Amino acid sequence: MKERYLDIMLKEYAASDMYPFHMPGHKRQPMDLGEGERLDITEIHGFDNLHHAQGILREAQERTARMARADASFYLVNGSTSGILSAVSAQTKRGGRILAARNCHKAVYHSIFLQELKARYLYPMSTEFGIQGSISPEEVEKKLEEYPDAETVLITSPTYDGVVSDIRAISRAVHARDKVLIVDGAHGAHFGFSKGFPQAALEMGADIVIESLHKTLPSFTQTAVLHIKGERVNTEELRRYLGIFQTSSPSYLFMAGMDRCSRVLEKQGGELFERFEERLDRFYDRAKNLKCLHVLDRAGEERDPGIYMRDRSKILISGSQAGISGQELMDILRRDYHLELEMASGHYATALTSICDTEEGFRRLIRGLEDLDGKLSSRSRVQRNHGVSDSRLYSPVRRRMELRDAALAEKETVRLADSAGMISGEFLYLYPPGIPFVVPGEEIPQELPEQILRLKRLGYDIQGPEDYTLEGIKVVL
Amino acid sequence: MKERYLDIMLKEYAASDMYPFHMPGHKRQPMDLGEGERLDITEIHGFDNLHHAQGILREAQERTARMARADASFYLVNGSTSGILSAVSAQTKRGGRILAARNCHKAVYHSIFLQELKARYLYPMSTEFGIQGSISPEEVEKKLEEYPDAETVLITSPTYDGVVSDIRAISRAVHARDKVLIVDGAHGAHFGFSKGFPQAALEMGADIVIESLHKTLPSFTQTAVLHIKGERVNTEELRRYLGIFQTSSPSYLFMAGMDRCSRVLEKQGGELFERFEERLDRFYDRAKNLKCLHVLDRAGEERDPGIYMRDRSKILISGSQAGISGQELMDILRRDYHLELEMASGHYATALTSICDTEEGFRRLIRGLEDLDGKLSSRSRVQRNHGVSDSRLYSPVRRRMELRDAALAEKETVRLADSAGMISGEFLYLYPPGIPFVVPGEEIPQELPEQILRLKRLGYDIQGPEDYTLEGIKVVL
Repeated sequence: MKERYLDIMLKEYAASDMYPFHMPGHKRQPMDLGEGERLDITEIHGFDNLHHAQGILREAQERTARMARADASFYLVNGSTSGILSAVSAQTKRGGRILAARNCHKAVYHSIFLQELKARYLYPMSTEFGIQGSISPEEVEKKLEEYPDAETVLITSPTYDGVVSDIRAISRAVHARDKVLIVDGAHGAHFGFSKGFPQAALEMGADIVIESLHKTLPSFTQTAVLHIKGERVNTEELRRYLGIFQTSSPSYLFMAGMDRCSRVLEKQGGELFERFEERLDRFYDRAKNLKCLHVLDRAGEERDPGIYMRDRSKILISGSQAGISGQELMDILRRDYHLELEMASGHYATALTSICDTEEGFRRLIRGLEDLDGKLSSRSRVQRNHGVSDSRLYSPVRRRMELRDAALAEKETVRLADSAGMISGEFLYLYPPGIPFVVPGEEIPQELPEQILRLKRLGYDIQGPEDYTLEGIKVVL
Repeated sequence: MKERYLDIMLKEYAASDMYPFHMPGHKRQPMDLGEGERLDITEIHGFDNLHHAQGILREAQERTARMARADASFYLVNGSTSGILSAVSAQTKRGGRILAARNCHKAVYHSIFLQELKARYLYPMSTEFGIQGSISPEEVEKKLEEYPDAETVLITSPTYDGVVSDIRAISRAVHARDKVLIVDGAHGAHFGFSKGFPQAALEMGADIVIESLHKTLPSFTQTAVLHIKGERVNTEELRRYLGIFQTSSPSYLFMAGMDRCSRVLEKQGGELFERFEERLDRFYDRAKNLKCLHVLDRAGEERDPGIYMRDRSKILISGSQAGISGQELMDILRRDYHLELEMASGHYATALTSICDTEEGFRRLIRGLEDLDGKLSSRSRVQRNHGVSDSRLYSPVRRRMELRDAALAEKETVRLADSAGMISGEFLYLYPPGIPFVVPGEEIPQELPEQILRLKRLGYDIQGPEDYTLEGIKVVL
């Protein structure tokens, strides 16, 4: 086999006419940083130190904080991952309790493991579209009542699917009990710059918000920011953990890109968002006319009681009426239209858009969908969906042990097909989005093994078990 | 005050004629990656997933492993920091015991904190040049004897100063007791490619070696690699922690740069290292003729019993005979010769060199030193050193509490000047190199506060305390 090299593959991809409806938010547009390696330095004279910022890096982070109306903002060079690990570690005691949205990122589960937390989960509402909905303030109230010893509440908003929760009402409920609200806003770094998107979580009362700049703004992959506001944040512990979970050699290229991103937003944000919203509006207007393909409407909540609010920059396209799965849809769009989407999950595929998308990109997307829609109309509408609904896959499961205890317990490997009813020693999730069906310590539901094996046969990427083939899974006997 | 922006400052620096004798090892030479943002993607179709590598990223890491003769190698996008946190976490039980070189990186102290370890320290030998020397196999033997419950031994080799320890003898001692040897080889990624440098730690028997690619090889800042070899490594736990301490959105630009780095070394390594060694040899030959400035000889051990072996790519230049401190030397070289060095510590300054340094760079360095040397000769030789010797600063201190207990204890802030004899609640170190004088739980030595305040007055960057001004320090009462 011919040797392949990543840098050469990436150059070929960059030279192709594939259009990126995926992260990072800069959409491969020039960021005016020239040849990056020319700007890639270390902590030399005059260039400050991220872990001890007193010069330009302090100024840059203060600039970011000003724009977000935060008390302080911290650059993250190890992604939102490092922000989540730091925030949870700072706001919980080891062995303490956290209430976390079940549809949270794996970094939250990792911090539960590291901090030995007794986690209890907040379950999202179900939706008609078949994605996980918002976390309702009532769900938060109920769990706060049930677990008065919880120190911290963590919500993901917006989700990968663009589902936003009512952070204002949730933060009121959390603060009424003098707890801390952490919002994983990794997918919402573009909020707060225009009226066309939901308000930023920090403005709605969250104490700590983590945002991935790279996901939806022009910034390098792996860059993120953590904002704090108010008196409840344990700033000293937070600084400690930010110093632990991030390299002592942070990339100047990343940090320069983040500072440039702030400046672009400050100086041209208004105009860039206006243009972006117009393009989105035109897209959603035309998408209404699709016959077989179905695009979740821009607001989401117009028809779906499980969605409090929607981030319309994430375009969810369902093929279920045409009998094609999200994975098939994504494959067709890549193969026939050279449109690379962000992800496929169940019956839909997601196109991520940002202020860096071009007029031509939007045109290619809607024309591609219209063309495909025309072809699908004439196809027989056989139900070829994967037959596994999100609400079944993600329904509450029975906890038999705490996560860390199970993760560290003696385990045996059994055939996945035989594992129903046993205590899982591993995570099981579809990636993306990476939301677990079961976490270590939970009982594997009766129908899950079969559903998972079906998803795998359909080409979905199931992760978690050490055994990549999914033949076996580790269980606690 | 005029607003400053990091990206603009970096462009100005790149356009200046400052020559970089500092990290990263690519020395700002083109890495043929074009405009980085064009290659910066996410985990799209065909580009694999670092946390679940089965395609190109698996091939790339296997290529790296083959070159290092490792059983497996793992790309690190959160620096050696993430490799150290992962290795220590994987090879210790929570609350367990580790023997760690006292001159280890702060990431080791952070993993001691996270894992609640009872750390005992291996002290480096003292040297005539006034830097911290090698860790002797006898010191390791002695401590292993004293602490038979230690699970893991961690050594830094080479150090920031290029001091190498006898890893072969140390690994024999460690393995005789069936313990694991982790080597923080962050400063030695360039070992193993030629006979002109010490052998790589993995080849000398270490079980896990972490190397910063960016420090001494052509690779982006923040990129590193972790190698494993042999049966003692807990691979499953290691994979768990690598998944925890690294972002779920790893930079493709970083990974492409790492793969390119491997290819450059594989295809042109021999010739690049040959040329590099010739340049170093010529430099050291001419440096012998300096009269006032003193360059530590290439081998180090020729004259110094405290140094087992030396990495001559790190050029240590002492100004003590001329009565100037390392900081002054570094400032003069920047101001008068436009040579930016890596760091100053005590009586010397360090110039880092790599295979990417140019003939012109080496010429400018030796000519600058010769010119300065000539001027210094005519100056009166007043002793203006900082008057604080490394061996006093870094001598063993009394432990009164374990690190984590002190770090989390109730603390009070006292004036640093009044803190002698108290239990420190914070780290205190000079950055770089970041090796602590005291760690939380240790008694602040009588003379330390005065020494630290003197260093601060001389312009050295003392870090650790939350109070940046060093007025106060937190202590456990």
